Amino acid sequence: MTREHTVRSYDEELSHLTNLIARMGGLAEAQLDGAVQALIKRDSDLASRVIAADSKVDEIEQEVHGFTVRLLALRQPVAHDLRMIVGALKISGDLERIADYAANVAKRALVLNQIPPVKPTAGVPRLGRLVQEIVKEVLDAFVEQDNEKAVKVWKQDEEVDDMYTGLFRELITYMMEDPRNITACIHLMFIAKNIERIGDHATNIAETIHFLVQGTPIRESRPKGESILPDPSQLAKDN
Amino acid sequence: MTREHTVRSYDEELSHLTNLIARMGGLAEAQLDGAVQALIKRDSDLASRVIAADSKVDEIEQEVHGFTVRLLALRQPVAHDLRMIVGALKISGDLERIADYAANVAKRALVLNQIPPVKPTAGVPRLGRLVQEIVKEVLDAFVEQDNEKAVKVWKQDEEVDDMYTGLFRELITYMMEDPRNITACIHLMFIAKNIERIGDHATNIAETIHFLVQGTPIRESRPKGESILPDPSQLAKDN
Repeated sequence: MTREHTVRSYDEELSHLTNLIARMGGLAEAQLDGAVQALIKRDSDLASRVIAADSKVDEIEQEVHGFTVRLLALRQPVAHDLRMIVGALKISGDLERIADYAANVAKRALVLNQIPPVKPTAGVPRLGRLVQEIVKEVLDAFVEQDNEKAVKVWKQDEEVDDMYTGLFRELITYMMEDPRNITACIHLMFIAKNIERIGDHATNIAETIHFLVQGTPIRESRPKGESILPDPSQLAKDN
Repeated sequence: MTREHTVRSYDEELSHLTNLIARMGGLAEAQLDGAVQALIKRDSDLASRVIAADSKVDEIEQEVHGFTVRLLALRQPVAHDLRMIVGALKISGDLERIADYAANVAKRALVLNQIPPVKPTAGVPRLGRLVQEIVKEVLDAFVEQDNEKAVKVWKQDEEVDDMYTGLFRELITYMMEDPRNITACIHLMFIAKNIERIGDHATNIAETIHFLVQGTPIRESRPKGESILPDPSQLAKDN
């Protein structure tokens, strides 16, 4: 009886960990959505709420960290359980970064709301929506432990990089056209970079899910592939 | 006899892990140094070598990841050993990011070498040197398991942020003065941002060392403290 109880309780602990990650993922996703909306609608109240809510994500990360360390110590997990616990630790780090980047987008949205809008920069919301979808998908892949979905997300990183590069060029053009656009365009550039970085962290999570489900690293090299002497026009796309 | 052997072998494994982190740290430090030198001296060969060497750091990260998972499974560590192993996993993630940012600085240095230099931007090398020192100190703190040194590094993050903010303003001024400076200044801005982010990862490592040595998180909130409605001029400093 005692043993059965122990086993059940261990299962409960593992699903508590999965729930923590899912909750953290949901929060990070909402933060990204809020930040992109605040930017599009020039909504400073929403931006402020996103900034204030970042600490909630940090708290869950701390909770995940403490909980995984206790689990490792008390349960001495092996095989899939162990990969799951180490994976949760890594994923929580990526989610914390995603939320952090979202909060930074919201902060820059606040600044942009204090200056006149530049040309219709439809590119930034478009990049935001693409990355939002990717984050949503990778969280689904985690909850469903769906490796195929994770690999799909992993491959989408290239699309994000291409969209970011195009946007970067567009913003440079606006700055060249009129120096009064410079400040706004720089904030938009950093916003775009933050969103692109969120995509990178979603890619990391996809890699972790693959390792977690399959027990091996994703075989092909990362889609963003680094060349030694890159085409300068492509440079903007890497971190 | 067998038991003694097992114990010795476990100690050897733990020190192998510490060595892996120290080696990875040394490489990341060298990458940052190379990138900053390549930028200052407009040395494209050096920049190319830095970019090519990034994969070595990635390889060690993979090795650390595989090794910690095996250690956790086979040795079922507790207390300080467990914190050490989980800490090594986190630190390797930060070091991988540091090297990645250094490689990006080198890539942008390559591009800058193809266009005429802008005004003497002494600020970027200065920021680079400050962050190099911080990375060096935090690696010393890790090797010596020196919590005081780690806390000192942790507090220096504010200095990095202030220097970055000043530099950011200076670069905006150059761009406003002459639109022909825009492309170079944007690369310098992203270089400065990458270096500032390296400082953040050094701060993360300091936090991990504190947890590892003391078994508790650093108490005070992070030095970069997020305000809800930030002064717009300060915005540039957060990620």
